[in-house]
Amino acid sequence: MKIGVPKEIKTNENRVALVPSGAAALVAGGHSVWVESGAGTGSGFSDEQYQNVGAHIAPNADATWAAADLIVKVKEPIKAEWPRIRAGQTLFTYFHFAADRQLTEAHLAAGATCIAYETVTLPTGELPLLTPMSEVAGRMAVHEGAKYLEKLYGGRGTLLGGVPGVLPAHVVVLGGGVVGSNAARLAAGLGARVTILDVSLDRLRYLDEVLPANVQTLFSSRHNLLPISSSGGCSFMAQLPPSSFAAKI
Amino acid sequence: MKIGVPKEIKTNENRVALVPSGAAALVAGGHSVWVESGAGTGSGFSDEQYQNVGAHIAPNADATWAAADLIVKVKEPIKAEWPRIRAGQTLFTYFHFAADRQLTEAHLAAGATCIAYETVTLPTGELPLLTPMSEVAGRMAVHEGAKYLEKLYGGRGTLLGGVPGVLPAHVVVLGGGVVGSNAARLAAGLGARVTILDVSLDRLRYLDEVLPANVQTLFSSRHNLLPISSSGGCSFMAQLPPSSFAAKI
Amino acid sequence: MKIGVPKEIKTNENRVALVPSGAAALVAGGHSVWVESGAGTGSGFSDEQYQNVGAHIAPNADATWAAADLIVKVKEPIKAEWPRIRAGQTLFTYFHFAADRQLTEAHLAAGATCIAYETVTLPTGELPLLTPMSEVAGRMAVHEGAKYLEKLYGGRGTLLGGVPGVLPAHVVVLGGGVVGSNAARLAAGLGARVTILDVSLDRLRYLDEVLPANVQTLFSSRHNLLPISSSGGCSFMAQLPPSSFAAKI
Amino acid sequence: MKIGVPKEIKTNENRVALVPSGAAALVAGGHSVWVESGAGTGSGFSDEQYQNVGAHIAPNADATWAAADLIVKVKEPIKAEWPRIRAGQTLFTYFHFAADRQLTEAHLAAGATCIAYETVTLPTGELPLLTPMSEVAGRMAVHEGAKYLEKLYGGRGTLLGGVPGVLPAHVVVLGGGVVGSNAARLAAGLGARVTILDVSLDRLRYLDEVLPANVQTLFSSRHNLLPISSSGGCSFMAQLPPSSFAAKI
Amino acid sequence: MKIGVPKEIKTNENRVALVPSGAAALVAGGHSVWVESGAGTGSGFSDEQYQNVGAHIAPNADATWAAADLIVKVKEPIKAEWPRIRAGQTLFTYFHFAADRQLTEAHLAAGATCIAYETVTLPTGELPLLTPMSEVAGRMAVHEGAKYLEKLYGGRGTLLGGVPGVLPAHVVVLGGGVVGSNAARLAAGLGARVTILDVSLDRLRYLDEVLPANVQTLFSSRHNLLPISSSGGCSFMAQLPPSSFAAKI
Amino acid sequence: MKIGVPKEIKTNENRVALVPSGAAALVAGGHSVWVESGAGTGSGFSDEQYQNVGAHIAPNADATWAAADLIVKVKEPIKAEWPRIRAGQTLFTYFHFAADRQLTEAHLAAGATCIAYETVTLPTGELPLLTPMSEVAGRMAVHEGAKYLEKLYGGRGTLLGGVPGVLPAHVVVLGGGVVGSNAARLAAGLGARVTILDVSLDRLRYLDEVLPANVQTLFSSRHNLLPISSSGGCSFMAQLPPSSFAAKI
Repeated sequence: MKIGVPKEIKTNENRVALVPSGAAALVAGGHSVWVESGAGTGSGFSDEQYQNVGAHIAPNADATWAAADLIVKVKEPIKAEWPRIRAGQTLFTYFHFAADRQLTEAHLAAGATCIAYETVTLPTGELPLLTPMSEVAGRMAVHEGAKYLEKLYGGRGTLLGGVPGVLPAHVVVLGGGVVGSNAARLAAGLGARVTILDVSLDRLRYLDEVLPANVQTLFSSRHNLLPISSSGGCSFMAQLPPSSFAAKI
Repeated sequence: MKIGVPKEIKTNENRVALVPSGAAALVAGGHSVWVESGAGTGSGFSDEQYQNVGAHIAPNADATWAAADLIVKVKEPIKAEWPRIRAGQTLFTYFHFAADRQLTEAHLAAGATCIAYETVTLPTGELPLLTPMSEVAGRMAVHEGAKYLEKLYGGRGTLLGGVPGVLPAHVVVLGGGVVGSNAARLAAGLGARVTILDVSLDRLRYLDEVLPANVQTLFSSRHNLLPISSSGGCSFMAQLPPSSFAAKI
Repeated sequence: MKIGVPKEIKTNENRVALVPSGAAALVAGGHSVWVESGAGTGSGFSDEQYQNVGAHIAPNADATWAAADLIVKVKEPIKAEWPRIRAGQTLFTYFHFAADRQLTEAHLAAGATCIAYETVTLPTGELPLLTPMSEVAGRMAVHEGAKYLEKLYGGRGTLLGGVPGVLPAHVVVLGGGVVGSNAARLAAGLGARVTILDVSLDRLRYLDEVLPANVQTLFSSRHNLLPISSSGGCSFMAQLPPSSFAAKI
Repeated sequence: MKIGVPKEIKTNENRVALVPSGAAALVAGGHSVWVESGAGTGSGFSDEQYQNVGAHIAPNADATWAAADLIVKVKEPIKAEWPRIRAGQTLFTYFHFAADRQLTEAHLAAGATCIAYETVTLPTGELPLLTPMSEVAGRMAVHEGAKYLEKLYGGRGTLLGGVPGVLPAHVVVLGGGVVGSNAARLAAGLGARVTILDVSLDRLRYLDEVLPANVQTLFSSRHNLLPISSSGGCSFMAQLPPSSFAAKI
Repeated sequence: MKIGVPKEIKTNENRVALVPSGAAALVAGGHSVWVESGAGTGSGFSDEQYQNVGAHIAPNADATWAAADLIVKVKEPIKAEWPRIRAGQTLFTYFHFAADRQLTEAHLAAGATCIAYETVTLPTGELPLLTPMSEVAGRMAVHEGAKYLEKLYGGRGTLLGGVPGVLPAHVVVLGGGVVGSNAARLAAGLGARVTILDVSLDRLRYLDEVLPANVQTLFSSRHNLLPISSSGGCSFMAQLPPSSFAAKI
Repeated sequence: MKIGVPKEIKTNENRVALVPSGAAALVAGGHSVWVESGAGTGSGFSDEQYQNVGAHIAPNADATWAAADLIVKVKEPIKAEWPRIRAGQTLFTYFHFAADRQLTEAHLAAGATCIAYETVTLPTGELPLLTPMSEVAGRMAVHEGAKYLEKLYGGRGTLLGGVPGVLPAHVVVLGGGVVGSNAARLAAGLGARVTILDVSLDRLRYLDEVLPANVQTLFSSRHNLLPISSSGGCSFMAQLPPSSFAAKI
């Protein structure tokens, strides 16, 4: 199969969909791989590294898209890329169609087969391509939350973990799935007091067993949420999908 | 030296001041030991066990006090025991004179040398006979607090650690010395959220390093204490000597 | 549906089957809710709180039972309540019929539909209304065990966690299910040495991974149990349902 | 004594040197306190809160400086404030004279008594006003380091803790004093692999006992440092004062 | 059924297939048990202990094999034992046929029914008789690895945990199943830095939650393995079956 | 100063007293360093590495000893080395004179100044050159103890940590100083149940705070030790210097 790897052009997207060792595996499997020149730069991979494992370097985006039956990307194609899509071509990337009608209709019109990473599902119900993104998202949420609590970024000047003699922040995490439990673990690691809520008691039981002692679990109900949100007692609250979200889709 | 061990007669006092292995050590050191018959029963030691290591059994309290130059006890002598004290005799026990003027004057009048366990001080400032009592007191404080939170004992029916989905209790410990840090550790072990306050930031720093993650430290000031005590947000609050109390005496 | 919430009258039962936020949810769902006056007092809820969310206050037990198609309670109806049950009425509470033939026959005779909380089972085999009770029971077992080890309550005067230099108690937990693992976790949190036994090695493997280091697991067999029970080496032993108990029912 | 609290005017400095409860304590001790109008705003305290505890509000900086024998501040006076200093006045703030000759000479010329927070030393050698700043600095260092590893801020796009299946970052902390050990603890809490170096083996022994398992200690020598700094194997390296730095000053 | 327990004669095999309490259970179930004289010695059980629970002692190996319909052993029969196998007899032991064609053909020729412990599979896919061996193997792997890192045994003189100021060893574990996760836990307990690899991200996620902080997880791919194996940066590497190995058989 | 580094010739001693980076530091300080050819081989350092930093290579032992005013070694000189010692020369190594009269008298007779590493004492009472050896000794003690519990080495076939369902070994450590606390930590890391005894309650308090939960502390007295040693209940017992040993010397 002819596989193309365009350079990502969405703002602030530095990743590449295929690293050289992945290209090597595909080439070894008898496929031909076309990587747009410079596609790997943002992730620290040079054109040479792709060539060394048998991939071809396409001079530009048009050539990359034209050469391939299967396009592997990181982000959904942005408007500038739509004209390059060919009917019959297969696109494999994070699409998030549900959030963007125009995007969805453009791809329907293009006649390409679009497989969204975030919907690939194993027989066990697991979402193998979404879960790692959720782990990153949950961990980054704490880094971001901590940043926006700084005075410099408009926050109230709270340090998540406090210092000895000064109480830590109270972080409330709504949803105990992949995103939430990763956020809770990191906030706890920074020394915050963490309350994690979920509608599944069974999930909370597991989190109670494996999360650090400064994470407390709370059943997610109107009764339990109202006092938290109205008291101003928490430093920041992250609203994340509940643990059963993935399975529900 | 002649050493006497009377049976404790204060209500609910089941301990004995000298266990058989202690008696053995004193006998081996050339002393003669007189144990009142039945003195060890409450702690599980029979008269035979004392006799087997070379102690004598005195038939009653009068005989025990009469035989000895040094009386070792657990609790301060209660009124019924005062007539047995002889001038020149040495009494070694927990006295807590500061709390009881009548007790103090009776012993002054008796002409005995009274050494209070709780005031024995090492060159390092450590109080070797008080500290273990403080450890027990701090740990028992949590057992007692938990009991009096039960509805059966007039409490509000709070389980210190909650269960998954139900928030744990908030335990506030005033004073981070031996008593307080032991109380904090046990309350945390039961799953409570614990706030420990002390006037020494240096002590709080150490506690922050060695106590579990569900213990948070707070500098003890009027500013910090008022919101806690007025909000009703804590399940119980234990007022204990600050970390510097022992050294100040 | 007309839903009635009688005040619990069994000795020492202070709970109420429906809290105001629960009543609010039912009212919002189009049901009418009748709460016996004072039913919430023992749990800290006033009649007003129920009225504020749209529930009706019934003046007494008879009126509550008479008004409702569905009675929600905490404990099984005691004899004084039996005459109030109507044929065709649905009763939803903890029944524990297996332990009380007279109770069972009285309810059969009454012609009511009785749904026992403890038998509600999810497709996964989970018992969502029994498990939280088991968690409370397992945790309370340690509080109770600790209390009855005190001299004051007839025990041998053992502090579960000991103090530095004095060995902790040895707590043996028979059964590694919900009750047992909660008991083991709390006893370990108090500093005891804990041995937990179960007939499922697979369950012990999981407990070994998530329980604290001072819990040791032991396969439950006659060979392993005999030396423990005969040596007097454990401070107290709690016999609890094995981990597979729930599934077996 | 007349005590003045000017509003801080250095860029991005939102703190105030005296909170209302501190003002209350000084007033209770017989002092008169003059707070510049708006001095507490950046920290969330209104003029009213100061007035309520007996402090006076001065209309502007000139009035505040003029009214007081003792000026308490957060940061060293910047140039705009120098003309307000009076001979004989006492200034109490963080000065860091060593880093700024012009600042030092201006204050010498002014004839004021300058007490730098960072040099206040207890008989034990402890620096009670510097240590909390060091704790904050060490913890913020990790927040900052994590931020500048993001692509958005010019970093290589490394998440300190990685995610399951992706190795965490390697954080090297030079100096195991207050700053360094706080930095190490937080980086470890975020899931990074941490190496902390110090010239005192005794300090490393203590850190080995109280820091999390993903912190490894290394003696700080040319021999040990060279391979780390040349291999590119660490994600970021923080150079902090060694543990003995404070005592050496 | 007549059950025979021969003494193991393979080099360094000290175990016995049936302990006295197991014999007691079989006798209680109506079976007759024949234990070869001395079979239990290596495990600390005397002939008397077997006789006391109702087992018979057979004078030698021939008598034991001859008496029994079912032979229970620890290791596969070695050549000296093959002539004792009878057609129609059932043999229950660890066989590992896949590794030894001669062994397999000898047992096929003998006409016995051979049930290999390591292949007994529960409906859940669990291997109840193999898993405990894997746990022992994984833990022993670390003891053995540590030993062969000593100079005395030809190693490079590395102590797995280092000491304060000296970096710990880096242990790489290939495969995160039962063997690997047990090895990782013990190496971490000794203070080593551990990297565990597996092809299942889902398994790595679980290990990340329950293993100590000094274990880091890494997806097992050519890309990730090459730099580890070529850099010489790890102290020893244990190649173990991946987590999915058991299920694959 | 002229400094000589002979190759160690005592059996199984592979270490070298001075690594190349140490030699570099001495050369940089104006000293001349003479390393016996091959002295670094056992530790992985070639003659070239020493020459590259400015040290001289001496062809043999005689030349090394003859060239130097100060000899730095690892182990005490064995008999073959005694004739090489010159009057006036300074020897710096681990000597352990107290254990070997002949060694002591030979060095007295030689007229050299002998400084034993193990007696170098800081003003704080710390023994900077002995402590790291004690750390290694305490950790190796557990590795060795585990090995000699294997059947292969004559032990009873006990795995220190057991496996799920099988109790771990009980390790008793006599002495809670550097050696003992390191041994306790590692045995606990392997999953054993550990009891550590010491005559200093103060030391046990600290160990109780920083050692893992499966280490229990016990005051070291005849009364406490007798039942442990007579019951056969511990897997192995390590007799180590008490925590106050170093200070007493």
